[in-house]
Amino acid sequence: MVITAGVDLGGTKIQAAVMRGRRVVGQARRPTPQTGAGEVIAAMADLVMESLALAGVAAGELGAVGVGTPGIVDSDTGAVSRAANVPGFEEGVLLGPELSRLLGDVPVRVDNDVRAAVVGEHRLGAGRSYSDLLGVFVGTGVGGGLVLGGRLRRGLGAAGEIGHAVVQPDGRRCSCGRRGCLEAYAGRQGIERQARKRQAAGTRTVLFQTMEKMGRDRLTSGVIAQALKEGDDLAHELIEDAVKALGVALASAQNLLDMQAIVLGGGLADKLGPEFVERVEKAMKPHVFAEHPTAPVLPTGLGDLSGAVGAAISVASIGVARPRP
Amino acid sequence: MVITAGVDLGGTKIQAAVMRGRRVVGQARRPTPQTGAGEVIAAMADLVMESLALAGVAAGELGAVGVGTPGIVDSDTGAVSRAANVPGFEEGVLLGPELSRLLGDVPVRVDNDVRAAVVGEHRLGAGRSYSDLLGVFVGTGVGGGLVLGGRLRRGLGAAGEIGHAVVQPDGRRCSCGRRGCLEAYAGRQGIERQARKRQAAGTRTVLFQTMEKMGRDRLTSGVIAQALKEGDDLAHELIEDAVKALGVALASAQNLLDMQAIVLGGGLADKLGPEFVERVEKAMKPHVFAEHPTAPVLPTGLGDLSGAVGAAISVASIGVARPRP
Repeated sequence: MVITAGVDLGGTKIQAAVMRGRRVVGQARRPTPQTGAGEVIAAMADLVMESLALAGVAAGELGAVGVGTPGIVDSDTGAVSRAANVPGFEEGVLLGPELSRLLGDVPVRVDNDVRAAVVGEHRLGAGRSYSDLLGVFVGTGVGGGLVLGGRLRRGLGAAGEIGHAVVQPDGRRCSCGRRGCLEAYAGRQGIERQARKRQAAGTRTVLFQTMEKMGRDRLTSGVIAQALKEGDDLAHELIEDAVKALGVALASAQNLLDMQAIVLGGGLADKLGPEFVERVEKAMKPHVFAEHPTAPVLPTGLGDLSGAVGAAISVASIGVARPRP
Repeated sequence: MVITAGVDLGGTKIQAAVMRGRRVVGQARRPTPQTGAGEVIAAMADLVMESLALAGVAAGELGAVGVGTPGIVDSDTGAVSRAANVPGFEEGVLLGPELSRLLGDVPVRVDNDVRAAVVGEHRLGAGRSYSDLLGVFVGTGVGGGLVLGGRLRRGLGAAGEIGHAVVQPDGRRCSCGRRGCLEAYAGRQGIERQARKRQAAGTRTVLFQTMEKMGRDRLTSGVIAQALKEGDDLAHELIEDAVKALGVALASAQNLLDMQAIVLGGGLADKLGPEFVERVEKAMKPHVFAEHPTAPVLPTGLGDLSGAVGAAISVASIGVARPRP
């Protein structure tokens, strides 16, 4: 059976997984090196080797490696750029070829991180019984990916950007420079920006004290979850805004596409748990047009592993084509 | 070559077309009888016969008939219900079988009117060079249909309802009972409701005088166009609202799907002309996320004929299967 590896590259951590067919047989993760692109790519290679060792698989048996990365991906060359959260990845990095070289010239295919996660959830996660699926990942920003008729939709290369659906015309400023995008309401960064603005305007909140107590320099999903637990009014209000914005954007997408299911994941959704996912499903309902039962909104089935698993699965056909050593 | 007919049923008029392969060889239209379902179906049969005669085609040569209708369609039985604007079609009507009987048992397939129009535009109209296409029809309400990868998307049966995309949370009340739907801002009925409200609240407008002068009992697209010509401030404001709402909904759809083109038709768009379509395209731009040139927004290529042509084309394969007499 073909053996492939998947690597999910993030600004905070790197997750690798080795799969034998449809089964994860080894996995490893570590924090993303903050020093430069070379160190990041070396860490990715190390994690693949570590996962292989844990799986008891020799490096020579590895058929192919799939990578999910933020930023702009040129899937022909394996180059990545504009991944602002990964050190050295803002400018262009030849991620595919360099990782391949470190792994003994094994074939490497690079794709967008959100799409890899959607493929993972579609093939082996919460979306595995559906052929029409929207995956939405709420983390620093909000990313999305569509599977229609069993196939990942790419469009002209930019399909899936539900994070930039307009949920409030002339609304909050988004990190993309536009106004009223879903991401400005439901992304961790958008929530932080709004929290700082409200605090500066005199609203009392424990969010930033909690952040300091937890030794963080930004409002991580964990910080937000803790402030909610402590009953912080501003945290509750901002999460309610996020839920409403997700309800509007997901319902509009559902009215247009009439999908079978929606998977809601990402750091914030995973941290806030199934109750958050249920609230979003409830917030969609008033806006859904169809009379048949609407698509269920599901938590991810693979959690942190969606991206690495999806990346590994998506190169299975390349893996088969490679002659064994 | 196979000969098929298409009938586009509307609350105001019925349009029929006869096609030989991909060419319209005869067409006819008349106002929709306001007396009952029997008269409506008889008129549809008459129009098919009239179109055949104009095409110089004998009734026996007709291979199949496609129908586009408003309301809820059961495509297995050919039954239609909840088409509130067509006399007698609010309750269930066995449209397919009854029309078939009147036409000498020729096969009849019934589908949604907006989908038929999208198929027409995709196959022979403004969308014919694209495999990924959103069709939006702005008339009494706002309907939509999607062609993805060359195929009409149905979803679980309700795909394409961009008219109920949320463009303003807690915004204007829509005829569907929800709030803030695109249709409440861009549909003729939504515009009329808002105009009456504004007039009752003291806003001066020539809209309703124009309506009476033109002998209408509602704000038709023609009435709105006339008031715009006369420089009516309220008419200009409401059309600007419609343009903005279309910009928001189309951009959000584009960010999610990254389509090749958008076709904008329907009574209001056709009446207000290419300038209106250009304004909508411009209103989308600030919200579009992708960096590549965005999908052009195009006026329909077939105008009033989109629906009848689409319905006729969609039964071409049935037509082939029928043995010639």
